[in-house]
Amino acid sequence: MNDVVICGIGMTSFGKFLEKGLKQLGNEAIMKALDDAGVPKEAIQAAYVGNAVAGVVTGQELIRGQVILRSIGMGGIPIFNIENACASSSSALHLASVAIQAGLYDCVLVLGVEKMTHEDRTVTFKAFEGGVDVEEMKYLIEASSMSHSIFMDVYARKAREYMNRTGVTKKHLAMVASKNHTNGSKNPFAQRSKPITIEEVLNDRIIVDPFTRYMCSPISDGAAAVVLCSAKYAKQLTNKPIYVAASVILSGKEHSFGEPSVIEETGRAAYQVASAGPEEIDVFEVHDAAASAELMAYEELGLCKFGEAGKLIEEKITYINGKKPVNPSGGLEAKGHPIGATGLGQICELVTQIRGTAGSKQVQNVKMALAQNAGGMFGLENAVAAVTILKK
Amino acid sequence: MNDVVICGIGMTSFGKFLEKGLKQLGNEAIMKALDDAGVPKEAIQAAYVGNAVAGVVTGQELIRGQVILRSIGMGGIPIFNIENACASSSSALHLASVAIQAGLYDCVLVLGVEKMTHEDRTVTFKAFEGGVDVEEMKYLIEASSMSHSIFMDVYARKAREYMNRTGVTKKHLAMVASKNHTNGSKNPFAQRSKPITIEEVLNDRIIVDPFTRYMCSPISDGAAAVVLCSAKYAKQLTNKPIYVAASVILSGKEHSFGEPSVIEETGRAAYQVASAGPEEIDVFEVHDAAASAELMAYEELGLCKFGEAGKLIEEKITYINGKKPVNPSGGLEAKGHPIGATGLGQICELVTQIRGTAGSKQVQNVKMALAQNAGGMFGLENAVAAVTILKK
Repeated sequence: MNDVVICGIGMTSFGKFLEKGLKQLGNEAIMKALDDAGVPKEAIQAAYVGNAVAGVVTGQELIRGQVILRSIGMGGIPIFNIENACASSSSALHLASVAIQAGLYDCVLVLGVEKMTHEDRTVTFKAFEGGVDVEEMKYLIEASSMSHSIFMDVYARKAREYMNRTGVTKKHLAMVASKNHTNGSKNPFAQRSKPITIEEVLNDRIIVDPFTRYMCSPISDGAAAVVLCSAKYAKQLTNKPIYVAASVILSGKEHSFGEPSVIEETGRAAYQVASAGPEEIDVFEVHDAAASAELMAYEELGLCKFGEAGKLIEEKITYINGKKPVNPSGGLEAKGHPIGATGLGQICELVTQIRGTAGSKQVQNVKMALAQNAGGMFGLENAVAAVTILKK
Repeated sequence: MNDVVICGIGMTSFGKFLEKGLKQLGNEAIMKALDDAGVPKEAIQAAYVGNAVAGVVTGQELIRGQVILRSIGMGGIPIFNIENACASSSSALHLASVAIQAGLYDCVLVLGVEKMTHEDRTVTFKAFEGGVDVEEMKYLIEASSMSHSIFMDVYARKAREYMNRTGVTKKHLAMVASKNHTNGSKNPFAQRSKPITIEEVLNDRIIVDPFTRYMCSPISDGAAAVVLCSAKYAKQLTNKPIYVAASVILSGKEHSFGEPSVIEETGRAAYQVASAGPEEIDVFEVHDAAASAELMAYEELGLCKFGEAGKLIEEKITYINGKKPVNPSGGLEAKGHPIGATGLGQICELVTQIRGTAGSKQVQNVKMALAQNAGGMFGLENAVAAVTILKK
């Protein structure tokens, strides 16, 4: 199989941009990624476009990628629209990587784009409902207050169970949120740009117990894009290739207490593909749609033993200057969470970390980096999980 | 690259099944395909699920495939949701084929599933609107009568231009519809099961000039599934492998009169991949969402010269017993058009044709077969086109 290399990245700021449409967001990220790779748009042989909720929010379904690419004259090529909840663009990256591995293309585009904000906020909240089994979880949808995403209700229930089992406290959650907002304040693309103290997190407005607003990712518009190349083609573009060492997608299934979650399973599979373990990874971007999810990811990805995530954040191991930095970008909580773009947003951050161009949020000496994201819900289990490992 | 083989097929009847949900339709097709292949569900290593409008119609977005597969205990594996208008499941087949070519899997599932009917018919018609550039074609959406799909307005305008240019008449369109309904009457899975004469087609209710109802594909629910294997793995299951000789997806772009359409481009590319031309193809399934599209496909796929499609149908060359049989299944007009399932519905028909199990609609001595479908619209050009070639 051919090796897969990331040659270019580009992203928009993440935020609330009521006036920007899907095409404008997507095109900004694409043009930046092409420019970063140093390839003209004619070099792109196929495009893989991840999007989750824009269909509901904007009415643009069925041919989202074609509409975006055509508006900048990128027609004629194969274009695939991938929908996999919050892992949509990670899934797009996976499928693009497979096509290069198969030798089908030398240079392709991966785009994650999301238009979530709407003048009527209930439209946005409605869009989340498609991320659960709508027949089975009708009760959840009917009970929805339409004041926040139903996913926060699910995350909160999961967090309460987790806290009961492990002794993780609300202060641990606040430490995660404070760390991420402080990291995010160094990220020019972040939606929330202010450093936040632990006390400010704790004293903020409650969304669903135990979460205050700063412990939850915001509603965001945004896009991120990547130019993916075969190793051979990449030689024309860069002498410092960044390889996709693993790109694994799995789906959730019923599991009992003590059995591995889909995130844990996906992480294990990715470590195996990359022939590496958590000890070799220098920096992580994880799916902190809520602060509790970051703590659980510490355990699921093997940064610490089960039940020890609270200790890990207390010891500041996952701070930028710690031994295992997590979410230097600010994570979903501070950088923003335009769900179909989030997976590639993580990848863009990790590429800058490996390149050493991450500015004041730079982690020292990054050779290998891991992105984890997940989305959709069956009960308290994610419907889909993605783990991507990049290396120098 | 590894060769790709179809080892099992399964489909539901296509029709109006208000009482059947997405899970029920999908699962019926999956269980039949697994049974046909002779593999247990545990053998499936990944799933590629094409769906187009069920998000709008049922509210199930984001994790459509995961929801369907989980309901029959198929969790844990990688699952990808592919949306590419009427070519959604052809695109899913393409991506699954690439994964097998790359050596990633030996046995995967491809599903096309669509739930279109709704007690409120305007919901269904609304769903089609996502298949055009919703910003650019707002005028078309606003002018929509909500009495039929906006696509029929576009197809009708394209048909009128085509008829003016080529001399194709309304009677030629009626011959296509009559042929397809007569073929469909021999198909136990078809939505419209009555043979229809040319006169009956012409005297039927007008939908949009020049189309009467029988010249248009109906609104349908349905699902079709395929078990796809590496050639090596397929040896355990069958000694009569059917190979995917080509699976090409392209997107539409602006083109001037006389320049090739995206369907023509896709056909040419597929012939090149399969090292074959139209003369080697024994049977075709083409995307006759309206009767005019079948006539245009004759030309675009090289069954005749440009401007000669009317002559071809007059000479009955494309009838089941003709030299170039097209749509023995009844096509979209008679078999039905559950749009995300249509591409794999064509594949299921062609596999039975190659196997020689197509019953009274069997084409004699089929060694190589071609499926063409297309979807979404930019002006009068399809946004996406797919051509798949199968061979013994």
